Amino acid sequence: MSSLPTSNFYAVIFSSTKSNNLEGYADMDELVMQLAQRQPGYLGYESINQNNKGIFISYWQSKEDIANWRKHATHLMAKDKAKQWYKRYLSQICFVENSHEFSEL
Amino acid sequence: MSSLPTSNFYAVIFSSTKSNNLEGYADMDELVMQLAQRQPGYLGYESINQNNKGIFISYWQSKEDIANWRKHATHLMAKDKAKQWYKRYLSQICFVENSHEFSEL
Repeated sequence: MSSLPTSNFYAVIFSSTKSNNLEGYADMDELVMQLAQRQPGYLGYESINQNNKGIFISYWQSKEDIANWRKHATHLMAKDKAKQWYKRYLSQICFVENSHEFSEL
Repeated sequence: MSSLPTSNFYAVIFSSTKSNNLEGYADMDELVMQLAQRQPGYLGYESINQNNKGIFISYWQSKEDIANWRKHATHLMAKDKAKQWYKRYLSQICFVENSHEFSEL
């Protein structure tokens, strides 16, 4: 991923367990991902999936940038759909006080 | 996981890519995990692993709790070891402003 600031930015954590009813999910996931990367204030992401579980963390310059992105993303991903696709999700907005990366990649 | 407060607590994000030299890693990972869960202020965790990549997020009541935990964990996991075990890691301390969980599990 692109390098992040060392402090004073935002993270949106989305940790989820998917249901067995994933009709329309893949298209929407792709759209929301593309949308995020074109939004002002987008800084990068970390993502891992394992079977029906996933953690997706997106990084943003400000809370306003997150609000703008969520306005679009929520539009695309109506809440009733989210509750069809997911058995569980944890959604968090966090202020990153300190960020440190080590990389040999 | 146990239910979290809806705001005003801390998250420690650790996103990593492991190397091929994992001598001693499994024992240490187990120890650090057990240590976290016995520490004052520990609230829970989210974790996913996929091949050689992983995201581990632990939740804490305060920054002091994190500092105490990291003092122990760093002791166990000397920095030169971390750079042997990981090709890359991203370590972040975050203040959780808002947390929302939906669950049918």
